[in-house]
Amino acid sequence: MEYIDEVLSLIEQIRFKGYFSPSEDFSNIAILGMGGSGIVGQLFREIYTKKPVTVVSDYNIPDFISEKTLVIAVSHSGNTEETIRAMEKCESRGSRIVIITSGGKMSAKDHEKVTIPGELQPRCSLGYMLIPILRSFGLFDEKVEGETNRSLHSVMSIGPDIEKISKSLVDDKKIPVVYGISPTPSVAYRWKTQFNENAKMLAFNSAIPEMNHNELAAMPSCYGLENFMFFIAGHPDGRIRKRVEAMEEITGVEFHEIPVFSGNVIANTFSAILYGDLLTYYAAVHRGVDPRDVSAITKLKRILSS
Amino acid sequence: MEYIDEVLSLIEQIRFKGYFSPSEDFSNIAILGMGGSGIVGQLFREIYTKKPVTVVSDYNIPDFISEKTLVIAVSHSGNTEETIRAMEKCESRGSRIVIITSGGKMSAKDHEKVTIPGELQPRCSLGYMLIPILRSFGLFDEKVEGETNRSLHSVMSIGPDIEKISKSLVDDKKIPVVYGISPTPSVAYRWKTQFNENAKMLAFNSAIPEMNHNELAAMPSCYGLENFMFFIAGHPDGRIRKRVEAMEEITGVEFHEIPVFSGNVIANTFSAILYGDLLTYYAAVHRGVDPRDVSAITKLKRILSS
Repeated sequence: MEYIDEVLSLIEQIRFKGYFSPSEDFSNIAILGMGGSGIVGQLFREIYTKKPVTVVSDYNIPDFISEKTLVIAVSHSGNTEETIRAMEKCESRGSRIVIITSGGKMSAKDHEKVTIPGELQPRCSLGYMLIPILRSFGLFDEKVEGETNRSLHSVMSIGPDIEKISKSLVDDKKIPVVYGISPTPSVAYRWKTQFNENAKMLAFNSAIPEMNHNELAAMPSCYGLENFMFFIAGHPDGRIRKRVEAMEEITGVEFHEIPVFSGNVIANTFSAILYGDLLTYYAAVHRGVDPRDVSAITKLKRILSS
Repeated sequence: MEYIDEVLSLIEQIRFKGYFSPSEDFSNIAILGMGGSGIVGQLFREIYTKKPVTVVSDYNIPDFISEKTLVIAVSHSGNTEETIRAMEKCESRGSRIVIITSGGKMSAKDHEKVTIPGELQPRCSLGYMLIPILRSFGLFDEKVEGETNRSLHSVMSIGPDIEKISKSLVDDKKIPVVYGISPTPSVAYRWKTQFNENAKMLAFNSAIPEMNHNELAAMPSCYGLENFMFFIAGHPDGRIRKRVEAMEEITGVEFHEIPVFSGNVIANTFSAILYGDLLTYYAAVHRGVDPRDVSAITKLKRILSS
């Protein structure tokens, strides 16, 4: 399977029907996960706001995790060291645990599980990991699925435009800075990590309006601004739109926006994700690097386990 | 008052005795705040883990905020637009609200308040805003205060070393990337914003081990690495120490660490904060920019309110 097909499989993944039954007697949710799996928790926390959701991307877990916490442990491989350790700590607190994985050590655990296909790269499996959680909380019904499907096809149809932007980014050796916006600012973090892993490029992320309280102060007189290209990984509403225009006026920086294809938050989130997935894939192509290769990460794991 | 005295006043601020009485009948905490006030919530969430803490840095509030939520609204000026709007939404949910401010519109509100001195820059008032919350939850007793006081004096005593590092950073026109580590990774975000506001420098932040799952993949073959200088804004334990050594071996990048002066988490957090405050202050001096000036931020506020 070509890597671009793995990327575009997001369009198929939203049909994935896996889910678990969330009991009602918990007072908060903790999602465990690192890297490509951790982003699942960040996105869910922003989409589901009926109970406090905490994302744990570390070995350690907060004290409040108890039998009143629903713990969702997400690991594509099922072997992520930090996630397994954190999950074991949750077990000793008596939390109800649900596992989302394709296999590994975690699939041998005696907890409710959603088993996902394991063939794709972890970071190409975002749909498989996120959709079951959304479905379990009633957030991804037929209507939202249809809207998301249409939005993703619209993004695919502007592939050539996205490719052109990635070419100018790479040709000019720019480093992307990606700003997220409400309600799902974590999309910017997804873009950052996709630039890192797919294109082997440095990339950084922040959020609007938060950056108006700090980063903005630097822009008119900092050095090095010419090394960067600035993106907004989301769909500004009127209020944010006005801010962005004022920011451009004050800083002289251009903030690249992406087209909107839907009025639905979840559809917009997925289309902004696919936009970033394609942008970073094309950046890898233009750089002549293998988007699959993450040898530095596997090398680190080898050194640490030796 | 010289700006350096505002920076060093952190050592005095930890003696501030303000506090509120946290009732026991809430099930979660929300801290509202933007920029220099928002970092207060991020740090508190990492230090206090007995109940879920959500940081709201936006106009909008999550659905779960209710009469069972303790809301702590932090705004140095008392006039922060996003924080006021978010607070009003919490009022309509029947939440108990505590305000930490020096004045402004928020001081006219009929809620329990901790009134803090208003003379210093908001970002030089971190101690005044954070200490009352820590005291209210019994996290800053005499022993911790003593340990923090000693650590802060130790950081002050290595001022010349910190100044030297900031000189090489500025002379070589490097852009800082700051990595936070457990248990208080937000210290890296504080450094980033201080570079932005004090030194008018671009700066970015992430965390270890999270970056081992993404950024690390880019480092061996990315372009532009020579534009950056990498810092760890915290005190690695044995496990993280081993990671950092392996990361340096794989990437050829040097990760600058800061000295440890205490075994106490809160003392270490404050000393890492003061280290960053001094580093960014000296960077402003070396750049010849006014560390107080944040005219781009005030300009934006003016445009948006016109």
